[in-house]
Amino acid sequence: MKKIPVIMDVDTGIDDAVALILAMQSDKLDIKGVTVVAGNQTLDKTLHNTLSVVDYFGRKDIPVAKGCDSPLVRAQYVDPATHGESGLGTAKLPQPSIQPHHLDAVTFLKETLENSEEKITLVPVGPLTNIALLLTCYPHVKEKIEKIVMMGGGAFEGNMNAVEEFNIFVDPEAAKIVFDSGVDIVMCGLDITMKSYTTWDDIMRLKATGTKAGDFCAEAFGVYYNRYVSNSRLPGCAVHDAVAVTYLLHPEWIKTEKGRVKVDIEGANSYGATVCDFRPCRDKSKDNALVCLDIDRDKFVDLLVRACESYK
Amino acid sequence: MKKIPVIMDVDTGIDDAVALILAMQSDKLDIKGVTVVAGNQTLDKTLHNTLSVVDYFGRKDIPVAKGCDSPLVRAQYVDPATHGESGLGTAKLPQPSIQPHHLDAVTFLKETLENSEEKITLVPVGPLTNIALLLTCYPHVKEKIEKIVMMGGGAFEGNMNAVEEFNIFVDPEAAKIVFDSGVDIVMCGLDITMKSYTTWDDIMRLKATGTKAGDFCAEAFGVYYNRYVSNSRLPGCAVHDAVAVTYLLHPEWIKTEKGRVKVDIEGANSYGATVCDFRPCRDKSKDNALVCLDIDRDKFVDLLVRACESYK
Amino acid sequence: MKKIPVIMDVDTGIDDAVALILAMQSDKLDIKGVTVVAGNQTLDKTLHNTLSVVDYFGRKDIPVAKGCDSPLVRAQYVDPATHGESGLGTAKLPQPSIQPHHLDAVTFLKETLENSEEKITLVPVGPLTNIALLLTCYPHVKEKIEKIVMMGGGAFEGNMNAVEEFNIFVDPEAAKIVFDSGVDIVMCGLDITMKSYTTWDDIMRLKATGTKAGDFCAEAFGVYYNRYVSNSRLPGCAVHDAVAVTYLLHPEWIKTEKGRVKVDIEGANSYGATVCDFRPCRDKSKDNALVCLDIDRDKFVDLLVRACESYK
Amino acid sequence: MKKIPVIMDVDTGIDDAVALILAMQSDKLDIKGVTVVAGNQTLDKTLHNTLSVVDYFGRKDIPVAKGCDSPLVRAQYVDPATHGESGLGTAKLPQPSIQPHHLDAVTFLKETLENSEEKITLVPVGPLTNIALLLTCYPHVKEKIEKIVMMGGGAFEGNMNAVEEFNIFVDPEAAKIVFDSGVDIVMCGLDITMKSYTTWDDIMRLKATGTKAGDFCAEAFGVYYNRYVSNSRLPGCAVHDAVAVTYLLHPEWIKTEKGRVKVDIEGANSYGATVCDFRPCRDKSKDNALVCLDIDRDKFVDLLVRACESYK
Repeated sequence: MKKIPVIMDVDTGIDDAVALILAMQSDKLDIKGVTVVAGNQTLDKTLHNTLSVVDYFGRKDIPVAKGCDSPLVRAQYVDPATHGESGLGTAKLPQPSIQPHHLDAVTFLKETLENSEEKITLVPVGPLTNIALLLTCYPHVKEKIEKIVMMGGGAFEGNMNAVEEFNIFVDPEAAKIVFDSGVDIVMCGLDITMKSYTTWDDIMRLKATGTKAGDFCAEAFGVYYNRYVSNSRLPGCAVHDAVAVTYLLHPEWIKTEKGRVKVDIEGANSYGATVCDFRPCRDKSKDNALVCLDIDRDKFVDLLVRACESYK
Repeated sequence: MKKIPVIMDVDTGIDDAVALILAMQSDKLDIKGVTVVAGNQTLDKTLHNTLSVVDYFGRKDIPVAKGCDSPLVRAQYVDPATHGESGLGTAKLPQPSIQPHHLDAVTFLKETLENSEEKITLVPVGPLTNIALLLTCYPHVKEKIEKIVMMGGGAFEGNMNAVEEFNIFVDPEAAKIVFDSGVDIVMCGLDITMKSYTTWDDIMRLKATGTKAGDFCAEAFGVYYNRYVSNSRLPGCAVHDAVAVTYLLHPEWIKTEKGRVKVDIEGANSYGATVCDFRPCRDKSKDNALVCLDIDRDKFVDLLVRACESYK
Repeated sequence: MKKIPVIMDVDTGIDDAVALILAMQSDKLDIKGVTVVAGNQTLDKTLHNTLSVVDYFGRKDIPVAKGCDSPLVRAQYVDPATHGESGLGTAKLPQPSIQPHHLDAVTFLKETLENSEEKITLVPVGPLTNIALLLTCYPHVKEKIEKIVMMGGGAFEGNMNAVEEFNIFVDPEAAKIVFDSGVDIVMCGLDITMKSYTTWDDIMRLKATGTKAGDFCAEAFGVYYNRYVSNSRLPGCAVHDAVAVTYLLHPEWIKTEKGRVKVDIEGANSYGATVCDFRPCRDKSKDNALVCLDIDRDKFVDLLVRACESYK
Repeated sequence: MKKIPVIMDVDTGIDDAVALILAMQSDKLDIKGVTVVAGNQTLDKTLHNTLSVVDYFGRKDIPVAKGCDSPLVRAQYVDPATHGESGLGTAKLPQPSIQPHHLDAVTFLKETLENSEEKITLVPVGPLTNIALLLTCYPHVKEKIEKIVMMGGGAFEGNMNAVEEFNIFVDPEAAKIVFDSGVDIVMCGLDITMKSYTTWDDIMRLKATGTKAGDFCAEAFGVYYNRYVSNSRLPGCAVHDAVAVTYLLHPEWIKTEKGRVKVDIEGANSYGATVCDFRPCRDKSKDNALVCLDIDRDKFVDLLVRACESYK
């Protein structure tokens, strides 16, 4: 089977690391590169974490390009309370032996797309700053983008406030640019990612694989798990970013609904909201996203376990 | 059993009329008065309709007071497409033989509350203009208000736009005043009212009661039913305002969740939204509303049928 | 000459007190009442100060009615840094021997207007909460309002932020209601009031009158003067509220421009701004205000001195 | 005297053409390039016009790079009513014999700055889209920017609405990025540009130079002049963009004030406003702009006449 060519855009982050682990071992994906953005932590940390993860899990062949260090318009906002000061909780990885690509992320994306004979799927799982700049500076590359499978937003849920999700909240103008760009979007928002959690038993299964991936996940999930169990209604921790990769590998597992998503960039209570319109009376010609709503959690967890096993 | 003292606040409207029919025949409610506001139609029409309904269905004893003719801050918005030019679809009622109360609605509400020895439940089912003015001009009456059981808003649904409901959209500043007032609120929003619909068969059951109430409902529901079936995903028409009265009569039928509701008064996509926060990590001391989420539709329809029957 | 019938609406406040002193001694004005609102200080303090000023300066005949204790929609904001904890700086007045009117401010305004045979000019010099509620609850009284001569806003200046003036900033929704009401408005904003200041020499002239009014002004202006000289570009302290009264007494001294004033109720930098459109290409049929722009400061100060002298 | 190295960023436009004519003949400026953005007209037209003007007035040596075709976040807005369908009114220029640079504008700006040994002054006179993208994608080039001398905004005037100027209104998010970037800004807004107008007599003086520049200006100013005289309070047409170039050539002619400029990106009445804070009590450490307020118009007009003469 032909591999799906993808470029991931990450702000690594605990769940970004898991998403990379899941993606890098799959024989269904051809990862053309990984671009990095500020988000869960500052850019220096997310870049360092990304280089470490890519190196430690054996994919020195994948170029890693450094992107934007702050949102387009808003002041920076990072989340050490969830991801720790390092961005990877209490997990420790060796110093990376690889260097960032010589091109910055936006230029790397542009040139990789321009030079590709096939369309590439973009998989952003952090704030959409890099992707928004790409689409704005170089709109001609849109025709080389198959679609954007992203983690962010939510039709019926928020985590920053009642209706805002972190990635969109951090850079709502970038999100608006991406959702209004005309490129097909698959939105893996909180509706599905809050159903894609790992319980403590699941984490023990990951650890029991005995692989370096299993060990890493178990360690990284430590504080993260506790934070979710204390602050959310979940009996485990949501592995948000891994859901976008799961969609690429097994779209058949996921319930979606086509609709019109607008990003709110104003409003004291709802700036950063992804307002999803599924009403039958809407103008369907303006539908811009396939919104992921549900998943079989057991299959998702099994997939993570098998991914860890494969790092033997 | 002691009757529940209530004052209804209506913008009559097809479903307002049904709410009145349901309330006026119940021996559980002691209706101290009905105040009228602009909303589904202009104030002259909603006042005329209210007087007609109260009179025709035999409750000349209930005072009807004329309230505000436009929202607090925004330009007026009415909905003839749903409720018809008259506000009651194609239904015709005799000219009312009763007159509005000599006091305006806000003063009527103030004096009725001041003079009452027991606390009164307010039941607004239109834009919250009258209630907001009452609470702002005369905050001392809050101690005489048992709670506010209102129709409007929605946690997960909108009807004006993706996330805005008509009553809140029309006068969001009034809604914000009411939700921030400190008075306990039961919010019957679209989450529950879109589950409280009548199919064509149900409408035929209402008609089959052979009463003047059944005849009126069947006639009034004509265009309204067709509009819902064409424009929504429902197999019938939502009888929004009657749900607030149903909550008073049978709270045990209704699934609710306690939470913090903020009304958005800014934002191009979400002005008029009722942003509902149910997250476990929220500050629960700021919870201000019991949000109605589900109902047994069969019981709701049976209640409407029995109410029509009682008008024999 | 026929006196001009007026009702003043105040949030007393140092400059409100001076406005009252100026108005109460004039034989050109027939003060039908004074209504009180929260603003410079909380309502209990502004009411107490108003009763004290009216009583102490010999006008027990003027009814004083208690109005709203907070803005329509926003959280309360008071300004002790400018007006002191009491609201009158370090000035001390005897306990008032008069009581508030038995009617609340909105009802007092309504009844006074309804019962008046001639049109009355309203002179609000604080947040517009009372006036907005009056116009919203009882729009029929508009025909009894000659015009509204108010202090607030600014075409080219702000004091809360770059473009917001205190009275509008505190209750922008109320201001929007008043400016959109259709009643003729004379706006004495910062454009003119920042030109209506008293230097230290001027304050010494007031004191030198030897009257209780002169003594009071000199004492009240103490901290207020210093605050202006430190924080503004003025060589003295602006006597904002007295300018609205000055317009009533000597409109011929004041340069005005007709225009369209919109009140901004959204926007992080400009919520509370009075956006004044004087462009020749504007739709002049929507002009709603006469905006005061300049005054002969010497005449203004002389007027204050003569007013103080008259309290001999 | 050492020439000032500059890159101009234009949306040519009638007054952009005059700005180029003024800049290209000056021996004080070393024009490293001209980048083009959409604004007064769509990008294909503004690019064509720029190439035509640069070619026709003899400066084939200056590279012209094509930039962004729409604002960052908002929908496109162009102004054919002022600049005509072509963007140059009724003026006709020969087809350009030069081609756009092979690099896009943002990359051209980045590389030119990176490769320059001296700091370069940027002179944007259209929407700030290109400049905002440059500063966001490549923040390291800020150290190579001497300052940004831009045309746009206004402290006390608007032209789109009461307080919004066209260039900022068209892409307010880009403007916010630039003003918040930390780069020193000289803002030539409507305060000064509306004082930099040419009367009909002035236009006749330009024509009387008998040069191709004079002829072009006289022709281009035709409709533009009439539009100003009909729609503004000016007795002539403002030559906005030429003022930014004038500042470079003769800063000593221009009255400025240092202050803090914030760009409003929300608000129904004031989105797109440049809110200028000159209050003495402001935090002066946040001052980000030198705001141009006044100019000797006679000198400005003489400068334009001499510039046209030089094209003999």
